[in-house]
Amino acid sequence: MLKMAEPIIHHRHPEFQELFVRVTKNLQYLFQTKGDVLTLTSSGTGAMEAAVCNLHNPGGLGLFVNGGKFGERWGELMRAYGVTPIEIKVEWGKSVTVEEMTKVLEANKDVRVVYLTHSETSTGAATDVKAIAEVVRKKSDALIVVDGITAIGAMEMRMDDWGIDVAVTGSQKGLMVPPGLAFIALSERAWKRVEQSKLPKYYFDLKKARKSLATNDTPWTPAISLFIGVDAALEMIREEGVENVWARHARLAQSIRSAAQALGLKLLAKSPSNALTAVFIPESIDAKKFNKVLKETYKITVAGGQGHLTGKIFRISHLGYYDELEMLAMVSALELTLRDCGYKFEPGVGVKAAQGTFF
Amino acid sequence: MLKMAEPIIHHRHPEFQELFVRVTKNLQYLFQTKGDVLTLTSSGTGAMEAAVCNLHNPGGLGLFVNGGKFGERWGELMRAYGVTPIEIKVEWGKSVTVEEMTKVLEANKDVRVVYLTHSETSTGAATDVKAIAEVVRKKSDALIVVDGITAIGAMEMRMDDWGIDVAVTGSQKGLMVPPGLAFIALSERAWKRVEQSKLPKYYFDLKKARKSLATNDTPWTPAISLFIGVDAALEMIREEGVENVWARHARLAQSIRSAAQALGLKLLAKSPSNALTAVFIPESIDAKKFNKVLKETYKITVAGGQGHLTGKIFRISHLGYYDELEMLAMVSALELTLRDCGYKFEPGVGVKAAQGTFF
Repeated sequence: MLKMAEPIIHHRHPEFQELFVRVTKNLQYLFQTKGDVLTLTSSGTGAMEAAVCNLHNPGGLGLFVNGGKFGERWGELMRAYGVTPIEIKVEWGKSVTVEEMTKVLEANKDVRVVYLTHSETSTGAATDVKAIAEVVRKKSDALIVVDGITAIGAMEMRMDDWGIDVAVTGSQKGLMVPPGLAFIALSERAWKRVEQSKLPKYYFDLKKARKSLATNDTPWTPAISLFIGVDAALEMIREEGVENVWARHARLAQSIRSAAQALGLKLLAKSPSNALTAVFIPESIDAKKFNKVLKETYKITVAGGQGHLTGKIFRISHLGYYDELEMLAMVSALELTLRDCGYKFEPGVGVKAAQGTFF
Repeated sequence: MLKMAEPIIHHRHPEFQELFVRVTKNLQYLFQTKGDVLTLTSSGTGAMEAAVCNLHNPGGLGLFVNGGKFGERWGELMRAYGVTPIEIKVEWGKSVTVEEMTKVLEANKDVRVVYLTHSETSTGAATDVKAIAEVVRKKSDALIVVDGITAIGAMEMRMDDWGIDVAVTGSQKGLMVPPGLAFIALSERAWKRVEQSKLPKYYFDLKKARKSLATNDTPWTPAISLFIGVDAALEMIREEGVENVWARHARLAQSIRSAAQALGLKLLAKSPSNALTAVFIPESIDAKKFNKVLKETYKITVAGGQGHLTGKIFRISHLGYYDELEMLAMVSALELTLRDCGYKFEPGVGVKAAQGTFF
């Protein structure tokens, strides 16, 4: 944060270019790709839009998996651009299976792009991107696009090895920096499609961004201070090692899931993300009171449910700059809140279970 | 800068909403409008694109003034969306006149939108937006859209009084904050057009942004830290008073222009902006050496020329967080650089002229 507070530099001066080269190289390491990684000044949704409007032509077919608010967004984006979306709808909390994907691909031979959500933030469910990508590659010529917004930096992602064509993320998730920057990585196969795309675009025109990348620049003024923050964050990730970062997230997620289950709480996701955990609020207690006590008495910020899960679940983030001991603080606050709400359980059973996963 | 370095808050929590209400109200004051002012996470170009893709239907006619790199951008944006651009080309450094605008409007009755650039950053020329808007209102039903990216906060802008329909700016100009946020204000007349627009859009869909505005929110995660910076900047502008901010910029600009002329340097803009001054590098000296000495010996960052003016001009910014005494430092560095480059002039004549404008 203090790095970002230093006097601003100009983005067309050598000192920024040096930074730009380092950030771009470290982003390739984060995405595990040798392909281009472009920086956009927008939220993650902007990078998702860039994928859609740069890969299609009007009237093309795009397949997407709708298992929550963010999967659904791929469909909305396609509709906004006159691309025909084919939807695989999965129940919130579940993930698409290889069998479902195979079936839908066999029935729709003209699909140009398959859109996946690695970690569905609205439900805490993870997609087995590696397995799904494998079947898509085997069954079709469709490009594979992954919304990695809460996944990248939290869960294993080997873009090149897994045959992913496009992956996107934002600055405020695994990169631990305030929101405002988004990143999009593209394979050579994806670039061929970008060259042919005729959908309207300007700010999100990836050909313009690639041209600027060649001279270590962005086509439009970037969010420079956030870029400086991302540089610092990427250096931290390099130092820890990206595999170790993934392993740490797995440990943190496991501790929260174990604690919740020990407390008798139900988890939403069948195949859970390591970035966040969605937990049902026990029906026996008042959801409004639960949220108020957790926030006001114990100063813990969690997210609520979205859509039909509003008031029914809460979502604990363990994404980014967190360690094991902070998970104990989280679980302790959860226990105290449950007690204050009159929920019955054996005190300490949650923290004990969380701690147990660290041994 | 330190405000922005404080621990981040979440954009869907009450503390952010309170901030959001204040920022939006202060933005209305800055733009001098009672209409909606929307915050986008993008560079200023993103807000320009939002204007184009929200106001037109495919095949519509848009009139733009091309007097530099940023005026030209309006034409590029329209072409990207299949809108037919009609261009008024003016020589770099000059501005469109009321007579030219009248002539072109009379010849093109179907123009739906007129795009202006208040302060053309590539040349330092200002458009008389008030006078041009008056004639557009008299001669046509076209909406008036103003790129106010370097103008707003630097030059008089009375959006409602002048009948401007849409105005855009960015966080890194008059608002004195790092880049990454853009702002777009719309009149009720403009909203009617937005309702009818059928061009594809999602991230820059202003109807979505207006809907979120009603609940003090943005449709996508905003660049929260920059938003906190903009809040502090707007409080400073309110405290100084926006008319006083405009007057200060007029004084700073006048001091630089007077100094340059006293030094025998030629100015590019006939009708100069108060945000920046573009000055020709004397032909008798080496432009590369001039830039190097100014930057490396005297630590002053200026911008170079763009397009056909590359290597021919330099551009001094006096926009934002500057006062009179800093202008003297600028002029002194300029004199020392000119001396080091072998340019002949009476030492001190520049600083004397600059200082003279403050008496």
